[in-house]
Amino acid sequence: MSADIERPANSENKVGRTPRTAPKLDKLLTASAGLMARQGFGQTSIRDVASETGFSLGGMYYYFENKEDLLFQIQRRTFGALLELQEADLKEGGSAEECLRRLVRNHLEYFTEHFNELKVCTFELESLQGTRYAAIAELRRRYYQYLADVVAELEGLDANETADVERIRHITLFIFGMLNWIFMWFSPERDEPVAHLGEEMIDLILNGLGNAPADRS
Amino acid sequence: MSADIERPANSENKVGRTPRTAPKLDKLLTASAGLMARQGFGQTSIRDVASETGFSLGGMYYYFENKEDLLFQIQRRTFGALLELQEADLKEGGSAEECLRRLVRNHLEYFTEHFNELKVCTFELESLQGTRYAAIAELRRRYYQYLADVVAELEGLDANETADVERIRHITLFIFGMLNWIFMWFSPERDEPVAHLGEEMIDLILNGLGNAPADRS
Repeated sequence: MSADIERPANSENKVGRTPRTAPKLDKLLTASAGLMARQGFGQTSIRDVASETGFSLGGMYYYFENKEDLLFQIQRRTFGALLELQEADLKEGGSAEECLRRLVRNHLEYFTEHFNELKVCTFELESLQGTRYAAIAELRRRYYQYLADVVAELEGLDANETADVERIRHITLFIFGMLNWIFMWFSPERDEPVAHLGEEMIDLILNGLGNAPADRS
Repeated sequence: MSADIERPANSENKVGRTPRTAPKLDKLLTASAGLMARQGFGQTSIRDVASETGFSLGGMYYYFENKEDLLFQIQRRTFGALLELQEADLKEGGSAEECLRRLVRNHLEYFTEHFNELKVCTFELESLQGTRYAAIAELRRRYYQYLADVVAELEGLDANETADVERIRHITLFIFGMLNWIFMWFSPERDEPVAHLGEEMIDLILNGLGNAPADRS
């Protein structure tokens, strides 16, 4: 773990760079996320990941400075890709309601396709420190803000008004709660298709209980 | 940890009995929940709890058979008390909307007052096994059902209709997501009073975004 400047671990560590991943690194990140999702970051060692993937310990350290760096790379790759997906879709424009629909659909689809990675992102942010923590927190802040903006517009609230700030924050976090709690119960066999689940959630967010539009299926 | 039938640990273990707690036991359960909420069940030993509370290891085993029994007693006491509170309130009767309001308000108030205990209940169910697991799962199933019944009534759905079953389940779990996700962000300094937070959540559940009743504050 000496500071060898030839190592990809060092170039990958530059906070703010778009994640560039190669097939081998992808395989490592995916396997690591699977292990950490099952047994927690605290209980997972670099050695565990090496055993799981068939890499040597030396091979692991070619890609990662240490275990925290591995967690950071999982989070940056996963959250970065989700954010890029949402930003590309939001650039299409449209009403606040259309933006809400896309945010919810994309979030659910991406979550259910990258379950382990997002479980690790959600529950292990606090395991990062310093610049790594700050870089992921910034991705999350940007992500949060997209939903908060849509909530403010749909509720007719103004983020510059002190009286509205906490209300926007609460409602945004209620919606993230609905979205992220699926970690606790989602079963592909039972709950697919995800698009249908998304429609049910959007319906609740836009109309509340018992106020369904006539065309509800 | 031999099976000494004189030990309270054994009588407390009878699944289904109403939790009867004494001040010393209460102190132990509260301190244990605090430790487990901070560092996780897996990382917390009976020895840690003994150090934290000033009890001897022998004193600990007077109350608990083992660490899993300690976790079980925390969950049974906490979840049992919340369930009793909700059931007492639901017996008052009233419309489905009134019942929803009470369920949400009580849940949020109880959660914010027993944050550590409920964090342990939420994230450590899977750490229980056998009859202990079954006993807590049954408390949770009953609790879930109260909210599911209210959702079905407000949505005009029928739990006996196959077509409605999954929709009721999804919406119920969306609402539990909003409620339980507060673990990730609630700050007493920033988010009190809880009653106000509850009103915002009820408003979203009943009316959706941008369809507020005229009397909204």
